[in-house]
Amino acid sequence: MAVRTTPRGLTRRGRETRERIVKTAAELVFDQGLDRTTIDDVRTAANVSSSQLYHYFDDKPALVRAVIEYQADTIVGGQEHFDLSSLGGWREWREFVVGHERSLNCRGGCPIGSLGSQVSETEPDAREAVAAGFKRWEDTIRAGLRKMHRLGRLAPEADPDQLALATLAALQGGLLLAQVERDTKPLEAALDAMIALIASHSGGAV
Amino acid sequence: MAVRTTPRGLTRRGRETRERIVKTAAELVFDQGLDRTTIDDVRTAANVSSSQLYHYFDDKPALVRAVIEYQADTIVGGQEHFDLSSLGGWREWREFVVGHERSLNCRGGCPIGSLGSQVSETEPDAREAVAAGFKRWEDTIRAGLRKMHRLGRLAPEADPDQLALATLAALQGGLLLAQVERDTKPLEAALDAMIALIASHSGGAV
Repeated sequence: MAVRTTPRGLTRRGRETRERIVKTAAELVFDQGLDRTTIDDVRTAANVSSSQLYHYFDDKPALVRAVIEYQADTIVGGQEHFDLSSLGGWREWREFVVGHERSLNCRGGCPIGSLGSQVSETEPDAREAVAAGFKRWEDTIRAGLRKMHRLGRLAPEADPDQLALATLAALQGGLLLAQVERDTKPLEAALDAMIALIASHSGGAV
Repeated sequence: MAVRTTPRGLTRRGRETRERIVKTAAELVFDQGLDRTTIDDVRTAANVSSSQLYHYFDDKPALVRAVIEYQADTIVGGQEHFDLSSLGGWREWREFVVGHERSLNCRGGCPIGSLGSQVSETEPDAREAVAAGFKRWEDTIRAGLRKMHRLGRLAPEADPDQLALATLAALQGGLLLAQVERDTKPLEAALDAMIALIASHSGGAV
């Protein structure tokens, strides 16, 4: 398992500096990819010295893990605003996700999914950090579907856990196709397919 | 639109050399990613001189486009072995895709999808080549679903084009999650969800 890199025993100012470095690195990696982002790019953009940066992160892999955790925190935090225990909540979430990608002109793809492709075959620790981020994301989707099931809004034979995993996959693929094709249509088709499948188990309940 | 890099006017031996270079480059990129694969790696592994390599490809981007087209040809050629106009054909395809990933221990992800994440924000020509590959893939899936619809195996209100696009997205996301989590379960959940949705439109026909 990837070890979380949450800081301990830092002063408030230390935490703020660390957060600024991570946020800056996350933005650079999102814009230009992991391999093209150097420690020097991050240092310059975050306006910190080498010794400051290496005080918080032993090496680039440690910073990459922190970036993945930062992006997972942001995504899971955003996801938790939506109530995925009703079809209405699913539709609101779908509108949010599609609108967000449209506002980015479909650039960048998923902040953690696109890193998954970049690190999986070469950086095992970073791959595990992305996997942990995906698991946390899947958990929030599954919690909504399990509640929907428990409340009788999904037919007894529906499997909320399988639907949650399939939804995360559809979302990831939709984001990738949207990024490559610079068009939200694949993302819309993917999310609409999952909502149609969930609706087919809900017997018309909302 | 990306211009296809199909060779013209090459001798048989020239075509074979060119194909060997592209296949070697495709394998290296699949194993270690695009940014870590140098022209020198390809030259050495394909056992060709620099002047031979530059005779066929002006630069690395030209070789990358050829790699993307080679992978798209391979995938679309494999896809065409399956008859996606019946649920039986869909299930056979699902077994093939999952078995193939299992045989790779879930390494590498989709040969063109994983390139999509790597090139989209930095190499516009390569992004368009990946988009063209995705479109060809979508076309073969759509052809099966349109036939299924025409034959009355899908309800009149079903939209084969949207289902095809959603299937490609689910497949891409399933491949990415399988790669990151080193487990075929997300891929299985994604494909099973699409098959369940298609079956819900088929009224029990096979």
